[in-house]
Amino acid sequence: MTTALLTDHYELTMLQAALADGTARRRSVFEVFARRLPQGRRYGVVAGTDRLLDALEEFTFDAATVDWLREADVVDDATLQWLSGYRFSGDVWGYLEGEAYFPGSPVLVVEGTFAEAVVLETLVLSVLNHDAAIASAAARMVGAAQGRPCLEMGSRRTHEQAAVAAARAAHVAGFAATSNLEAGRRHAVPTTGTSAHSFTLLHDSEHDAFRAQVDSLGAGTTVLVDTYDVAEAVRTAVEVAGPDLGAVRIDSGDLPSLARSVRDQLDALGATSTRIVVTSDLDEHAIAALAAAPVDGYGVGTALVTGSGAPTSGFVYKLVAREDDDGTMRAVAKRSTDKVSVGGRKHAARRLDPDGRAVAEIVTIAEHARHGPDDRALLHPLVRAGRRVHHDTIGQARERHRAAMDELPPTATQLSRGEPALETVIVHEERNRHE
Amino acid sequence: MTTALLTDHYELTMLQAALADGTARRRSVFEVFARRLPQGRRYGVVAGTDRLLDALEEFTFDAATVDWLREADVVDDATLQWLSGYRFSGDVWGYLEGEAYFPGSPVLVVEGTFAEAVVLETLVLSVLNHDAAIASAAARMVGAAQGRPCLEMGSRRTHEQAAVAAARAAHVAGFAATSNLEAGRRHAVPTTGTSAHSFTLLHDSEHDAFRAQVDSLGAGTTVLVDTYDVAEAVRTAVEVAGPDLGAVRIDSGDLPSLARSVRDQLDALGATSTRIVVTSDLDEHAIAALAAAPVDGYGVGTALVTGSGAPTSGFVYKLVAREDDDGTMRAVAKRSTDKVSVGGRKHAARRLDPDGRAVAEIVTIAEHARHGPDDRALLHPLVRAGRRVHHDTIGQARERHRAAMDELPPTATQLSRGEPALETVIVHEERNRHE
Repeated sequence: MTTALLTDHYELTMLQAALADGTARRRSVFEVFARRLPQGRRYGVVAGTDRLLDALEEFTFDAATVDWLREADVVDDATLQWLSGYRFSGDVWGYLEGEAYFPGSPVLVVEGTFAEAVVLETLVLSVLNHDAAIASAAARMVGAAQGRPCLEMGSRRTHEQAAVAAARAAHVAGFAATSNLEAGRRHAVPTTGTSAHSFTLLHDSEHDAFRAQVDSLGAGTTVLVDTYDVAEAVRTAVEVAGPDLGAVRIDSGDLPSLARSVRDQLDALGATSTRIVVTSDLDEHAIAALAAAPVDGYGVGTALVTGSGAPTSGFVYKLVAREDDDGTMRAVAKRSTDKVSVGGRKHAARRLDPDGRAVAEIVTIAEHARHGPDDRALLHPLVRAGRRVHHDTIGQARERHRAAMDELPPTATQLSRGEPALETVIVHEERNRHE
Repeated sequence: MTTALLTDHYELTMLQAALADGTARRRSVFEVFARRLPQGRRYGVVAGTDRLLDALEEFTFDAATVDWLREADVVDDATLQWLSGYRFSGDVWGYLEGEAYFPGSPVLVVEGTFAEAVVLETLVLSVLNHDAAIASAAARMVGAAQGRPCLEMGSRRTHEQAAVAAARAAHVAGFAATSNLEAGRRHAVPTTGTSAHSFTLLHDSEHDAFRAQVDSLGAGTTVLVDTYDVAEAVRTAVEVAGPDLGAVRIDSGDLPSLARSVRDQLDALGATSTRIVVTSDLDEHAIAALAAAPVDGYGVGTALVTGSGAPTSGFVYKLVAREDDDGTMRAVAKRSTDKVSVGGRKHAARRLDPDGRAVAEIVTIAEHARHGPDDRALLHPLVRAGRRVHHDTIGQARERHRAAMDELPPTATQLSRGEPALETVIVHEERNRHE
């Protein structure tokens, strides 16, 4: 299926007008960046890059798509003709998945003719704004969990396809597994799950339900113990499964005190290795508040898939440089009132101190990047002359995320509202002082 | 493509255990309802029903899906065998799209064997939770706009497929059009759009840009006037397009005062019929604050697709009744601590006063519905014995939404936080006092 219509109407009307006056051919540089981090966040996490590259490969206007555009009278025949041969032939650079970003970080740079680059705006932003919002929330939860596994269970709280992407983004940012089966198939995220309240209610007694579950799924399964009375359920579960019961899940109530009393009860029953998983409307703050409780894993739903208060990342896709009639590139930027952008092609690096700790985000406005010896370059080639040159496994993205987090200053992982953990320093090189 | 893996892992493990002990055959009734409305909202709007019915028709476990489940070791062979023949054969009733709902409204009822109904939980909730969140936010914006058109432009701020559903849900709730082309193709939502800042920046001057746009798209187009200086841009736009210029769009700055000065300027230039569209981070409150400004249309992005602070609806999918061994149906409900549900199959009606104004949501716990003469029944058959028996056009859903809003008491449309506009009255009929 083509992704070509995951596009805003105005991109095609701009294309039509630019094709008509010849400016469509002007070489152009678009950049994706966030003007600010959401709500006192201290860092953001890039995610979705590989999904975007997949979608870009399917961004073609097939006959059915062109027919619909004609019937709907979206653009003229000359534009439809041009679109029917569309294949992105430019270059894309970007921060890799799992990487941290800050306000002004040029997380993606798209260069090509205006025509071929302008039509990608919506697709690029949809994928990155969503996936980065989820990964950014997930990273805070993983940090708060201090090594205890976080499980993604939010599919039911978001659009059915967004759910698949959310599971993937959460895994990039350190979640151990997801409930979402399609994320398992499509993105190789480990999947997990055992039973809901309905399974207990289906049976004539909790004992019957636990019996059925353990018989079918083994003693290592996780039983849900809060349908009726928690203490009674824990007793029944150990009676049925024996002391090798895998885990109990608590989905309601006052979790810190419940976890404590359930732990005591399990230990008294000899089920000392039975784990306790909690799953009731958790977010990073609730997870942090459970740090001292005997909890072995966190299932997170709503807060994860809605970005924990920041359901979108606020990335924009802005033209920052374009060709003049004489072939030279000119930095451009909107300059009225608010929403001011910085024109000119940018390069980015994370500056490290001698201990390898990040101290600043260096964004250089220049035609070519020149990074210092202590700078880790952040923009990597993803597409060259229309050909994809980058593939990540999700494992590589996870590893990169861990390394990027380890590099940040300690203030980054405070959950409280604050300033971005790194300052973004814009360096204007001489030749590019246009704006 | 199958929708079968848009499902949480635990639904299939429950299925496995229930198939093994025979309870999978028990006739079961699941209900979808919201325990509360989000954040002081006064009503919610149902959306996604038709999308859900489409997805249900594609909910089959084809060979590739079964193979993946086997490889991933999700469930045993007996369960895979059962799934490979899966076709929902039960009944579904629901509130129709566009309808208002309140806490406890049973917006969807699914009846079938436990096996066939339990596996639909995630798909049902994903679609309804997302689409209703968008429609509920959209309805408030449409109300605040008091008849001026609202345009959906939020695709870039949400997952690329969620964007398509969001455009559709917004249209159900009264938005006039969307920027999203795929929503035009897939759901027949009118699409709209003309140009962005990049189009102005591409050109050597604003005059060149407006010239190119008007030449290609006609004088009736909408030009974006805030790339540099708004007053200068308006002068240039009228100079280029003449007094028949369709509209100007303002995307930044202090909108009430800008709209006023641009209106005065347009009128002075003779462009008295040129409309003013504003599009800068609007939500229902910003729209309401522009009621006295000379604005002709509102473009809404981020706030719409993120549900204006409530990105999910909080619907849950709960087993409320199931068969006993002797074949009688038994009401069931979780009863520990918080998150208590009301067991038993429910029927719903909106009670109207003699003027046709809604006064209460009547939810009756009973095997068969008996509505009074002043009650408008809310649950409609959608699927009977596995066969879909309901199709809406989006126009029908829009019309139904308008009628449902007209019926609500005036307090419903206040933007301020408050209680639900209708109280949900639970009526227990004698025969069903099980819970």
